[in-house]
Amino acid sequence: MIRAAIAGATGYAGAELVRILSGHPQVTLTALTSRQFAGMPFGKVFPGMNGIVDIPCEELTPEQLCNKADVVFTALPHKLPMQIAPELIRRGVRVVDLSADFRFSNVSEYEAHYQPHTAQELLKQAVYGLSEVYTEQIRQARIIGNPGCYPTSVLLPLIPLLKKNLTDTSTIIADSKSGVSGAGRSPSLTSHFCEVAESFKAYKAASHRHNPEMDEVLSREAGESVHITFVPHLIPMSRGMLTTIYAALKQDISEAEIRECIREFYAGRPFVRVCSEGSMPNTLHVRGTNFCDIGVKVDKKAKRLVLISAIDNLVKGAAGQAVQNMNLMFGLDEAVGLKGVPYPL
Amino acid sequence: MIRAAIAGATGYAGAELVRILSGHPQVTLTALTSRQFAGMPFGKVFPGMNGIVDIPCEELTPEQLCNKADVVFTALPHKLPMQIAPELIRRGVRVVDLSADFRFSNVSEYEAHYQPHTAQELLKQAVYGLSEVYTEQIRQARIIGNPGCYPTSVLLPLIPLLKKNLTDTSTIIADSKSGVSGAGRSPSLTSHFCEVAESFKAYKAASHRHNPEMDEVLSREAGESVHITFVPHLIPMSRGMLTTIYAALKQDISEAEIRECIREFYAGRPFVRVCSEGSMPNTLHVRGTNFCDIGVKVDKKAKRLVLISAIDNLVKGAAGQAVQNMNLMFGLDEAVGLKGVPYPL
Amino acid sequence: MIRAAIAGATGYAGAELVRILSGHPQVTLTALTSRQFAGMPFGKVFPGMNGIVDIPCEELTPEQLCNKADVVFTALPHKLPMQIAPELIRRGVRVVDLSADFRFSNVSEYEAHYQPHTAQELLKQAVYGLSEVYTEQIRQARIIGNPGCYPTSVLLPLIPLLKKNLTDTSTIIADSKSGVSGAGRSPSLTSHFCEVAESFKAYKAASHRHNPEMDEVLSREAGESVHITFVPHLIPMSRGMLTTIYAALKQDISEAEIRECIREFYAGRPFVRVCSEGSMPNTLHVRGTNFCDIGVKVDKKAKRLVLISAIDNLVKGAAGQAVQNMNLMFGLDEAVGLKGVPYPL
Amino acid sequence: MIRAAIAGATGYAGAELVRILSGHPQVTLTALTSRQFAGMPFGKVFPGMNGIVDIPCEELTPEQLCNKADVVFTALPHKLPMQIAPELIRRGVRVVDLSADFRFSNVSEYEAHYQPHTAQELLKQAVYGLSEVYTEQIRQARIIGNPGCYPTSVLLPLIPLLKKNLTDTSTIIADSKSGVSGAGRSPSLTSHFCEVAESFKAYKAASHRHNPEMDEVLSREAGESVHITFVPHLIPMSRGMLTTIYAALKQDISEAEIRECIREFYAGRPFVRVCSEGSMPNTLHVRGTNFCDIGVKVDKKAKRLVLISAIDNLVKGAAGQAVQNMNLMFGLDEAVGLKGVPYPL
Repeated sequence: MIRAAIAGATGYAGAELVRILSGHPQVTLTALTSRQFAGMPFGKVFPGMNGIVDIPCEELTPEQLCNKADVVFTALPHKLPMQIAPELIRRGVRVVDLSADFRFSNVSEYEAHYQPHTAQELLKQAVYGLSEVYTEQIRQARIIGNPGCYPTSVLLPLIPLLKKNLTDTSTIIADSKSGVSGAGRSPSLTSHFCEVAESFKAYKAASHRHNPEMDEVLSREAGESVHITFVPHLIPMSRGMLTTIYAALKQDISEAEIRECIREFYAGRPFVRVCSEGSMPNTLHVRGTNFCDIGVKVDKKAKRLVLISAIDNLVKGAAGQAVQNMNLMFGLDEAVGLKGVPYPL
Repeated sequence: MIRAAIAGATGYAGAELVRILSGHPQVTLTALTSRQFAGMPFGKVFPGMNGIVDIPCEELTPEQLCNKADVVFTALPHKLPMQIAPELIRRGVRVVDLSADFRFSNVSEYEAHYQPHTAQELLKQAVYGLSEVYTEQIRQARIIGNPGCYPTSVLLPLIPLLKKNLTDTSTIIADSKSGVSGAGRSPSLTSHFCEVAESFKAYKAASHRHNPEMDEVLSREAGESVHITFVPHLIPMSRGMLTTIYAALKQDISEAEIRECIREFYAGRPFVRVCSEGSMPNTLHVRGTNFCDIGVKVDKKAKRLVLISAIDNLVKGAAGQAVQNMNLMFGLDEAVGLKGVPYPL
Repeated sequence: MIRAAIAGATGYAGAELVRILSGHPQVTLTALTSRQFAGMPFGKVFPGMNGIVDIPCEELTPEQLCNKADVVFTALPHKLPMQIAPELIRRGVRVVDLSADFRFSNVSEYEAHYQPHTAQELLKQAVYGLSEVYTEQIRQARIIGNPGCYPTSVLLPLIPLLKKNLTDTSTIIADSKSGVSGAGRSPSLTSHFCEVAESFKAYKAASHRHNPEMDEVLSREAGESVHITFVPHLIPMSRGMLTTIYAALKQDISEAEIRECIREFYAGRPFVRVCSEGSMPNTLHVRGTNFCDIGVKVDKKAKRLVLISAIDNLVKGAAGQAVQNMNLMFGLDEAVGLKGVPYPL
Repeated sequence: MIRAAIAGATGYAGAELVRILSGHPQVTLTALTSRQFAGMPFGKVFPGMNGIVDIPCEELTPEQLCNKADVVFTALPHKLPMQIAPELIRRGVRVVDLSADFRFSNVSEYEAHYQPHTAQELLKQAVYGLSEVYTEQIRQARIIGNPGCYPTSVLLPLIPLLKKNLTDTSTIIADSKSGVSGAGRSPSLTSHFCEVAESFKAYKAASHRHNPEMDEVLSREAGESVHITFVPHLIPMSRGMLTTIYAALKQDISEAEIRECIREFYAGRPFVRVCSEGSMPNTLHVRGTNFCDIGVKVDKKAKRLVLISAIDNLVKGAAGQAVQNMNLMFGLDEAVGLKGVPYPL
């Protein structure tokens, strides 16, 4: 059994990790950290888990974590993971970091959008954990920078097309819509129920920190410098993310061929589903699961491609992909522990 | 492996049965019937299940069902199950009926609130499938009348107290609140999104058909004629049911003693959780699970007991309890296939 | 024109007062106070009001308020209004207080549930602002204790029956359900969108501070000591309140007679609507308005009355009734400025 | 007083017309037609209006309508308005049609996306009712083709820029998100509460019938053939529409200049609000009102403009703009009867 600890277990991504790992047949949860809820059993912080996961929330030093775990998931605000990861790695513990601290190859990009990076040596070793794309590197990795939710929803549909050079990369636009859980569990006016219900808005239009993260990966995969226009929006629902991507097509190509291109790229991978003609992704269809559903439409008159992806921002966009990466790192089938199916409603 | 068929697989209770049984380690889903969607793979009717359950929906005669299944779940509107169940039972197939057709002992009560009963002989053999209360009879049963969602939420907290004669049964009131899925999947104005969102209302106050169902069971368990006042309400959310029960206490008894009385009654049973002092049930904590959470409060000044229960109306209130009953009928652990945990949000 | 100031204009009740008063033909809004948003125009704090109400939010002393206003609405947390009201009253300004500070006749009840009362002399002059019941006293009042939202929803349907001695007052139960805005605008985990959506729960069962407020008024109107069991619940929606009241009937009386009794009591009053037979209140039907809709059902077998009321917790339950009271105090038609009709959805 | 009739008063746009016109100081509602609810008072179909608008719903011939009304709002499914409008116009009654029947200049475009047009002569006289753009023509019109909700949200922000030739019209993309009420009041699976809640999806991507409507108007205003890529999405909320528009900029121009361009175009018009720097539209801020809020962002790196508009799909996107057009047609101030302000939540 793999001994897993979660640092930051009482945020939404952390709690989702607890949920998933509590049912993972190869994992034992050995430690949950939480500053705010230290001393309380997890099942008291999230009463739905009462009687299921009653491990206490604790405050633990990196050393203490190392004694308890083979892998640590750091579901902490950025800046904290880069403070503790070096010690974990030094002692041979694997790390899957859900913050932005280990996502960038280009440290100056990170520093331009976050803060000074204090673990640059380790950053060089980190692998970007887009499971279906960097599979081999993830298998070898000691530390994973788990992708942001928005980048996951943008990169999975786009990369197969970039690889084949089918679109004009200067024309790419990603219009994303996310459930409120993406903003985390800390109370704030913007996540107050009454401010969100019956409300829909864009935020950080063309200035969100996930934009440079996507640009870096897209540039690497396209083999040229890519900058996309990215506008995120907030949906009045708890979880789920839908991204609508627009790009000019470089050539005359049918919807069926594009679907085939994506299907081929992800052949054998269990979590990417390409919708058939006439069908389109819906966040409800992936809710609570690690699936990324992808739909394709061509606006022939405009010679423009429309790609639509749906993920659960907390699963494929965070905790689920983190577990998938852990599976890969430990030589397991990537789908172990992630076979839950969506509710019909 | 138990071969299971679902008659009426594309309603909400049916689809929930598909979800649960698709992950049940001792069950193979062998047939799904649907008049409306006959010919379509299930994963096309509920695209979330695409690639997971792609069995076609079919129209099948009772004979055809018998050839395919050891147990048939009838998730059909009342009146239909009593038409097909006799043939299924005659051929040795077990039946778990989610309609009202096999819930009543008193056929005239059934007929007063539904319609003439056409399978009265079979009705006599049927066992009321309140899993934690009629466990032994369920184990021996060939046909189960699976309880209504409202009765499940009312009976589980009340029965332990009635057994001990702690409350004045003439004073019992159940104020229930249900998510919209309880009304089924057929489109109607009352389930139209815009009529439900930002709306809360009572319906069928003191005249709902689940009222005589509860009265019959409560009378049986109390050993005296019981009629409760029951008022259901509609919550603007998809799934979940919370029931607040009021009853005058016959004696001076503490909250702790009442909790203990309920805990003792359900000792060893995995799906009833009694909330600790200071904690109360919340539908979110049981969403998607087979749990029934129960909370206790005494209004000392009024010498009145307040009991609160939370279930998922589609799971413990329908499909989950049906599977729990199947487990009991087939000699399995009652919790097999029902161990999914609630999402943190 | 009446010059009106709102102290605490950027909470939900305060903002609702701004909305209503901005369209009141006899009122000029002259000052809005807010500690948190001092210096910002109101239309920036609530951008929906941009270009409509651009008065700046300010911090003002009681003296400054007096110079600007003929009436001050104090939409502040309890404890603050009793600190500033005496000075306002002394200088001849009328006060409508939306907190609990001036609602109780019995100061020890107030102190038992809130804190020491520092304006007890003024408390004696205050009139409980249940507009339809204490109309004459309100007309003469200098200071109003505006009723709590729950009490409003409980008292309006019950008082006509108590006056006629139709129910056994020892059996009264009020099961209330409220939208989230009742908890105010300050961010907290319990009002976080993801904790509320798809969630339904009771809170402060039989221990809410509005319980003694109701008990006091009911006792006064019934002419005997009344204590009711009161359990509030939280609905996953922004605004609206539905209360279901249960009481044993003292005599054989029909639903029609009860409806007539209530209709007669409120004859000529524009904001109480009694639903016809077959129809029941729905929060959607009163959303954004000052209406209180009341429905009646008798459970004959149990000889128990079921009363259901629906109000908008922020309008009839707070800002709307406050304006209605101001109208009465200033000799206007009680409905002026309150004629907005509900949206169909 | 203008005598107004509403044909199709019990759909959502119709009911919204009733709401608005019931408070319009220059209008008397004289007739409401409804096939489904003929014979019922309107206040019974929408109980929120009980006691406010109790006119009966009727089935009326065009002749009967003419006798009762100076203006008829046809809030009917397309195809029906073109059957009755000619008779109404012939008899001197003004018509504001909320369907697509009188929106197109190019009859073959209409016929390609709807059906054969049976009132082509009248179509030539019809004016496209985008109030702020075709103001003068509307003032003179006898019949108005009231714009679709999506076109309203796309055209208002774009037209000022097209007039100044600031964007490359071949690059325009409109990504729209609409509340569920846009789909109408007829029950269907796609508007079933449980299918919508916690769900977000695109539909009719690059194939919606509002696309040619927008293309026609944009081409006219740009003076060149324009085709935009348009993808609508469904938001799990009742009302509100947000559209995010992307277009390549032809020149180096600042956000401030673009804001100024739009402000100037709509100078003096009460219902278009351009958000200040740092502020962006939100459907909640326009809910229930006739406002169109517009926000501007430039992605400098991509030389791409992002425009965001928010309207209430039932008000500025339907009933409100229809009343605004009626005001213009009858020589009134365009804002009469439309001064309701948004709720703070």
